[in-house]
This record gives sequence, C-alpha cells and structure tokens, in this order.
Amino acid sequence: MSGEDAPAQQQNAVDQKQETKPAEEPKAEPPKTESAEAAATPAATTEKAPEEETFTYRALVLTGYGGYDKVKLQVKKGKPALKAGEVLVRVKVCGLNFADLMARQGLYDRLPSPPVTPGMECSGVVEAVGEEVTDRKVGDKVMVLNRFGLWQEVAVVPASHTFLIPDGMSFEEAAALPVNYITAYLMLFDFGNLRPNQSVLIHSAAGGVGIAATQLCKTVKDVTVFGTASASKHEAISQGGVTHTIDYRTKDYVEEVRKISPKGLDIVLDPLGGSDTHKAYNLLKPMGKLITYGAANMLAGQRKNLIAVAKNWYHQFSIHTLSLIQGNKSVCGFHLGYLDGEMELLTQAMNTILDLYKQGKVKPRIDSTWHLEQVGDAMRKMQERNNIGKVILTTEPMPEEEKKEEAKKEDKKDDKKKDDKKKDDKKKDDGKKEEKKDDKKKEEPKKEEKKEEPKKEEEKKEEPKKEEK
Amino acid sequence: MSGEDAPAQQQNAVDQKQETKPAEEPKAEPPKTESAEAAATPAATTEKAPEEETFTYRALVLTGYGGYDKVKLQVKKGKPALKAGEVLVRVKVCGLNFADLMARQGLYDRLPSPPVTPGMECSGVVEAVGEEVTDRKVGDKVMVLNRFGLWQEVAVVPASHTFLIPDGMSFEEAAALPVNYITAYLMLFDFGNLRPNQSVLIHSAAGGVGIAATQLCKTVKDVTVFGTASASKHEAISQGGVTHTIDYRTKDYVEEVRKISPKGLDIVLDPLGGSDTHKAYNLLKPMGKLITYGAANMLAGQRKNLIAVAKNWYHQFSIHTLSLIQGNKSVCGFHLGYLDGEMELLTQAMNTILDLYKQGKVKPRIDSTWHLEQVGDAMRKMQERNNIGKVILTTEPMPEEEKKEEAKKEDKKDDKKKDDKKKDDKKKDDGKKEEKKDDKKKEEPKKEEKKEEPKKEEEKKEEPKKEEK
Repeated sequence: MSGEDAPAQQQNAVDQKQETKPAEEPKAEPPKTESAEAAATPAATTEKAPEEETFTYRALVLTGYGGYDKVKLQVKKGKPALKAGEVLVRVKVCGLNFADLMARQGLYDRLPSPPVTPGMECSGVVEAVGEEVTDRKVGDKVMVLNRFGLWQEVAVVPASHTFLIPDGMSFEEAAALPVNYITAYLMLFDFGNLRPNQSVLIHSAAGGVGIAATQLCKTVKDVTVFGTASASKHEAISQGGVTHTIDYRTKDYVEEVRKISPKGLDIVLDPLGGSDTHKAYNLLKPMGKLITYGAANMLAGQRKNLIAVAKNWYHQFSIHTLSLIQGNKSVCGFHLGYLDGEMELLTQAMNTILDLYKQGKVKPRIDSTWHLEQVGDAMRKMQERNNIGKVILTTEPMPEEEKKEEAKKEDKKDDKKKDDKKKDDKKKDDGKKEEKKDDKKKEEPKKEEKKEEPKKEEEKKEEPKKEEK
Repeated sequence: MSGEDAPAQQQNAVDQKQETKPAEEPKAEPPKTESAEAAATPAATTEKAPEEETFTYRALVLTGYGGYDKVKLQVKKGKPALKAGEVLVRVKVCGLNFADLMARQGLYDRLPSPPVTPGMECSGVVEAVGEEVTDRKVGDKVMVLNRFGLWQEVAVVPASHTFLIPDGMSFEEAAALPVNYITAYLMLFDFGNLRPNQSVLIHSAAGGVGIAATQLCKTVKDVTVFGTASASKHEAISQGGVTHTIDYRTKDYVEEVRKISPKGLDIVLDPLGGSDTHKAYNLLKPMGKLITYGAANMLAGQRKNLIAVAKNWYHQFSIHTLSLIQGNKSVCGFHLGYLDGEMELLTQAMNTILDLYKQGKVKPRIDSTWHLEQVGDAMRKMQERNNIGKVILTTEPMPEEEKKEEAKKEDKKDDKKKDDKKKDDKKKDDGKKEEKKDDKKKEEPKKEEKKEEPKKEEEKKEEPKKEEK
C-alpha cells in the first residue's frame, strides 16, 4: 500500500504534477455510451455477446463546463480492462467535494477535458484484481481516493488508492471520509502542527472539511475552535465541538475572534481565498499558521462567474518574506487533488484517521444521500451551503415510484433552471447587491428541497444494513 | 518564568511588534561614560561617593551605523536600578549573532537608535534581584536572552528572560546556546514539524544556527541533512552530523541536492534571502516547508552595501497562494528578535533544549573567544564566514601583555581598515565580480587571524575552570 508499489502511471503523476494539463488516463477515453433511458429498456442483442459487450454500468459524465445540468447520467458498455496493480471496484456510494463543483465550472485543472467522469472518492466492493495486486482481494470492502472518475457504478483504480473499510463503518461513512478527513488531518497536523491549548479558526464549520477539522481538533487537549457558519447551523456545530460559533453573515468574524482572543490565533484554515486570506493572515499570532486550501469565494452562482473569479484573483494573497519574518508567521497552501502522487503520505494519514474512527473520536456526518439521477440537486445543495456535513450519492437504483416523482420535478427544474439563469445574469451586476441576493437565493431552494429530502433520509435510516452487505 | 509574569513592559513589546520604531527601554538612556583608558587609571575620587557613583562597568556601545569600529568599549558609571521583576546579572560571556552585525549597519529595527549597547544573549551570575522575583536568587548562574543590551559587564533584565544554567555547562556554552538553539528548534520543530525519514537543507551549516540545526536534526530518526559550507569546513560539519556536504562556492547546490534527492526536500532553512529563497521554494517536495530567517545576502562588506540591499529587496521572495495550493507548500518566516514578547513559548523551547543538552544530544560548538576590546575582530570573523561554530566575547579583563600586542595590532588594523574601505568601494561595481572578490577577501583575513588565534584558544583550554567559578 506504500507509494513505492503504486503503478508506474501513478508515479508519473507525481512528476507531471506541476503541469497544468493533466496527463490523460485510460478511464478518460470516450466510452461507448447510450442514454440511461435507452439502457433501461431491454436491448435488442439477440446474439451472445462477449462479457466486454454485455457488461454495462451507469456513469455520471461531465459533458462540458457550465451549470448543474452539465453532469449527465450515461450508460457505458464493456468491462474496463485491468492493468497490473489495479482493482475493479463496484461502487456503492460517492462523495461530493468542492473540487467537483469547481471542475464543473472549468475552474479545476486536475481533470482531463470533458467528457470525463468526475469524483474523487467513493466506497464499494472489490470485484476483480489485476496482476501484482497482493493486498486486495475480491469481496474486500474499500474506500477509494482518486484524482477523478469515481462517480460511476464501476471504477478501475490502482490498488494503492484503496483503503480497507474497518468493521462497523457504513459505505456512506466510508465515502464521506477520505477527502475531508485527510485534508483536515494534513492541514492541522502536518502544516498546522496543532498542539494542546492552541486556537483554530475553521470557516464553513458545518461543511465536510469543517466538521472533520472540528473533530480532529477535539482529539488534542484544550484546543479552542472558532467556527463560522450561518446561524441556523450553530447548534449542530456546537454539538460537534466548536467552542465559539460565529455567524459570518451578520457579524465581522475578525472582530468576534479578537474579542475572545485578542492576541490572535495559532491556526486559521482558509477555504475562501481572496480578501479572507488577508484577514486570516492578520489574525495570526506569532508562530501562527495560515493554511489556505481553496477559493470558495470564486464559486458564485452555478456557472463560472467571471467577476467572482477576477475579484478573487485581484485580491489574491501575495506575501513577502520580510513580512513573514517580522511577524514570525507561516503561510501554507493545501489541496489534496495535487497530492495524488504521494500515496505513502496519504496512506499514513488515512491509517491514523481510521485508528481515531475505531476509537470513536471521529465520525463522518452525512448531510444527505442522493441517487445518481439527482446529482444536480446534490451539487446545488452543497454549492448553496445548505448542507451540514457531507453530501453523498448512492449508486442504488432509484425506485420506479421515485423516478416518476423525479420526472414531475424535472418540469419544475426546468422552471428553476430558467430562474437560476436569471439570477446568474443579475449577479453579474455588482458586488454589494450580489451578496444580498446570495442570501436570499440560499434560503429559497432550501424550502423547496425540504419537501423532498426528509423522505429520502428516512428511507435510508430504515434500511441502512441492506447496503452494507 | 511564564510569559504571563513577564513585566508589563515586555507584554507591551508584543503589541508594538509591528511598529518599525522599537519602544525605548530604560537601558537605552545615555549612560555616564568615559573612555576605557581613562577608567583604567585610578580615578581621583577622594570623597566617599555613594555606590551609584563608585560602581563602574565596561560596556560595548554602538555609537553609530557603519563598520566594525562603530562598536566602542566604554565605561559606564552608576549601578543600574532594578525594577520589580528584574535581576542584575554580572555578565561573563556574550554571544555574537547575525542580527548584531545587521544592527551595526542599521539594517535591524529591533534596536533603539545609537548610542545603544547591542547583544541578544549572554551568560553570567545573578548579582541582585528586584521585587517580586521569586524564581531567581543572588548567585544563580544564568543565561540571558534579551532584545539587546547584553554586551556589557552588568545587565539588568526581566527575570523571565533568564534561564538557569545546568550543571556541567560552561559559561561559554551557555552564552552560545540561547539564540542559535531556540532559533533552530522553533524552525525545525514548530514550523518545520520535522519527523523521521525527512530531509533538510541547512545553509551555512558551520555557522551557529547551522550547527545547532544539524544537532537537532540528528535527534530525529533517519533525517538526511544537506549542509552547505566552504570546502575547508566540510570535515567539521560531517563530524557534526551533516549527511551530504555541499561546497556552495564551487557547485550549484540545487543540482547537488537533486542528484541525491530528485523529488526535493521536506524542509529548507534559508538564512540568505533574495534569489536563494526562490531556489529553496523550488526545492520543496509536496508538503515541504521553507523557513526563511534572515537576509545574510544583504550583508556584503562591513558597511551597509546599498547595492546588496537593493538586490536583496529586488529578489525578495513574494508568493501567491495559488502557487502554494497547487504545490502543497509552506513558506514560513522566523526571527527570534521579533519574538521577545513570547517568553512562555521561548521558555518551553529552552527547557526542551536543556533536556537534550543534559542527555548529551546537543552541545554548542565554540569557534573562538574574544575580549570586549576585540569585538571588531570577532564581528569580522563572523561576517567573513571564517568561523566554525559560535563566536563569543568574554568580559574577563585582557591581560596587560595582550593589550600591548593589541596596541601593535591597532596600527595594522588601521591599514586593514583602509584596505577594507578599498574593497568595499570596489564591491559596488557589479554582481559577478563581487562574488569572486568575496572569496578572495575571505581567505586573506583568515591567514592573518590564524597567527593570533591559536594562542588565544590554547589559553582558554588551559584554564576553563577559572571562568566557571
């Protein structure tokens, strides 16, 4: 499982890391596809075709950069071939990450050009193993971490990119764990060097990384966690371990932190970018560490918002060493997507996290589970920050009854799309107005979604065992 | 000893850290002085003066920014008053640091304007304690860390700035330890988060921080140390623990590191600044940490070299967060001089270092010991990089015999000064030529100094106990 025995392809990925054009990978080749509807009706294959032909699976495919509808459910034909060191995983649950949302807008350079299947993490069962794979066998329950390509029913990945799911962990938890927890772990304990009695600011404390980071902070004695989130999420994040909750929509978080911790903070995790990175830097106390790991401020609206991108670029944080020296400060950048060649490091981190899971010290919190058909809604929920915890997709077939409801919703969605379009257009106006509209927008879809979701989640609760088999 | 009980004056220093004008401190007030020669002849004080008047002590005073001769030995009159929380230390040995050299040229903003006594560290014996001091008593052997003011026979400092010297440690070692070892410790273990199997590049590996950092690296399992130094010092640094020695004068250190460690390094300590910071950044592997802690490249010649300063400023490293994120890298700045308000942190680091000393894992290496009268030569040795280990000053009176020799040398020195002036002027020419001249220059004074030094160091070896009493 060490980086050393990762297949050559992976090793190359390390060397090519600095390139902006990602190396093409076999899974990115245009698959034989037909629409999901066509596959659902019995195919007219009268002759006995070889397994390569009869083997079909559903896959989400990013067909071009743009809105939620750019990710389409397709059916692929033909069993993917296994190279040495690879395993074929029958995917059960997939995790959604901010990088997936960025990728859809064309803002993330670690994916090949569309058409391509997104997805950095999933859980599932090993269905076949390639040559030279010694530490995985058919039937192993695994979670997978990959640069992309995991939002489908079947995925071929290097065995070194899989981790055995410990007893007692559901496929849902397993799909929610890798990206968020490894990210939070390496930021806090590798760059951040978190120690007892220190203080940490966690933005979006109700998001996937936020919840993971909060739990990991609580594994260290007397760590004070400042967490930002909208007021409705405060109870949840308090219960999760946040010491001081801050509603960033109604209060100046810098002021709030200074009130409680006048000298500043030991660690700030910054997923926002732009001007928030400056604020974070100024909040550091001597020997403090700022760890920036995204540019969520760039994501405004479902399509690429050039104003937001430009604004983020303009406010891009740039730091002189003299300022760092006089302040005794550290600025770190982190993104798991650029670490895919470092499997040894990631495996070490994962092993520590799994130990903490077994000790009951960390536990992924699932916000909501969606069918592959609902990936648009799932992405919307995350992008509009209506989630508390992880948004995941299940590959379980959607019950016929739900499909009918979904079809009805499609009509509504079309209206919604028009609506979104209008909003997006309006947004291009100006900065101040934008924020207000954002707030309003976030509240609206929430109400709509509430009608559908509880049902879905109740369903899950009643039969969680079924999926774990 | 914690930062909490540091006197208010110290606490304020934290808040004022960002200001360029350092707060004035009592020790900076113009003292009653007379020349050292005048004091050496018996004073004609026939009346019985109060202790405040009869109490005299020698002090090195920076009289203005410029060359080595700007630091003059003066005699101060009057016993310094003790405030609550302070102790009076009879200084035995003082350490020299790069910041002192920068300060002399006016390149270090943590000292008040001249006239002022430089010196960030010393060892000595507590001679008096102020009110509210509970953890120090008269007779305690201590090492002292202060923002400035320690190059004198008597120093008044907050008790929280003193550390008890452990049994078996000489005053020489004690004066050589605080700045170099705390600097190396916090860089490697706080910012660097050094762990087993990692690799570290240490520039100026034969310097005070370099030797301390090497020893501290060796306290962690299987750490590979790359150390740069001129070839003549390679044997010494190899014995000290450097795994791969690199002669930066004849070889491209980046190339040399890549040959052995193609993927790069986990930690680079950068005391140079300018273009070397860029090289350091590019040498980092994913999750690597660059810790920059100086701008030694600015020090070219004994006087402020505006070209070197401008060049350093021009090549000043500035980093965008996007580059940090895509590279998964960390850039940290460190300078102990700006941490003087963080006594709790420094005390913790010191306690760990002293434990390592007691276990025989670290031990300061003394390059040479000089009398206060010889401070110019001491600074020159350090600035021209002719030292292996720490350059220190002893407050012991210079034997009359040596004084005569010193007087003879003064004539020579005058010639040398002229010589230096010439060299400095020539240096202003251009970059390439400059480096070659530097090399030549560094070799010349070495030969001259060799004649005098061995004697001095033999003397020390014969009677080291005398000073420790």
